[in-house]
Amino acid sequence: MDTEYIRSHIRTIPDFPETGIQFKDITPLLLDAKANELTLSALHTAFHTLSVDKVVGLESRGFLFGPSLAASFQAGFVPARKKGKLPHKTIQKEYGLEYGKDILEMHTDAINPGDNVIIHDDLLATGGTAKAATELVLELGGQVVGYSFIIELSFLLGKNQLLKDIPIRSIIQY
Amino acid sequence: MDTEYIRSHIRTIPDFPETGIQFKDITPLLLDAKANELTLSALHTAFHTLSVDKVVGLESRGFLFGPSLAASFQAGFVPARKKGKLPHKTIQKEYGLEYGKDILEMHTDAINPGDNVIIHDDLLATGGTAKAATELVLELGGQVVGYSFIIELSFLLGKNQLLKDIPIRSIIQY
Repeated sequence: MDTEYIRSHIRTIPDFPETGIQFKDITPLLLDAKANELTLSALHTAFHTLSVDKVVGLESRGFLFGPSLAASFQAGFVPARKKGKLPHKTIQKEYGLEYGKDILEMHTDAINPGDNVIIHDDLLATGGTAKAATELVLELGGQVVGYSFIIELSFLLGKNQLLKDIPIRSIIQY
Repeated sequence: MDTEYIRSHIRTIPDFPETGIQFKDITPLLLDAKANELTLSALHTAFHTLSVDKVVGLESRGFLFGPSLAASFQAGFVPARKKGKLPHKTIQKEYGLEYGKDILEMHTDAINPGDNVIIHDDLLATGGTAKAATELVLELGGQVVGYSFIIELSFLLGKNQLLKDIPIRSIIQY
């Protein structure tokens, strides 16, 4: 089955980036052309009934499938980046990390009022970054119509940080 | 013409990230579905006669088109990342920046001996990162068959850092 093929190309690395973390490594998936194709297809299929204007991808692993997911909808791609990386006028949102805080930015011209937006990343963990991206999209007048992830670490309850009543689709759950 | 359409979606930001730099911003291109499609098509067409096993994309803007370029060849995608980001066993290469040095890493299992490899980034500037990626590919036994960029800043002479006799294709030159 497609999902099992994708899952078999995700590698768990113990104690990365620090002790106790079981890191989900998607580089074996990226190396395999068939796994790539199945992943993109699954990401698209999850929302294929929607009209999508923009896909927002979260730096930097959300850049790997975000642009091709956008292309599959004939939509634009918007990078959400860490502070200081985007060159034009931005809006910012602070979000919590396990230790300390970070800042996510989006160009102010990235979203038009009324745009239907999918927020995409490779992984949903605690949901802090996806929550910050949601707030940026809403501030620019867009509406979030879906959350798209390759992997969801369900036990971290990241779903609780995201908008209620908006579909959250992850291909693989742990 | 396609190239002019792509060029019209690249924005020059003066004095970013520091005074005197004319930064080439591809976010307007990413926002436009047609510009995205034409860019991917041009990147692929430049090497369409080659047999390609892997596309190496350089963190992080090389992640935007690298995976779809790889898919267009039915090839695998390999992220080359800054130190400490890749979770499995890596090899490293130091490279010079305008001020100081940085380290580029690749997973040791990313390239098989004999693999035909395209090195891709959004921009060829001084060529330091692409040179480091070249050395990593060669060290793993791969052969570089092409260099692929959206934009080349010709006046910085980055070409001089790359392998001789290997085609370098950039869609837009400044």
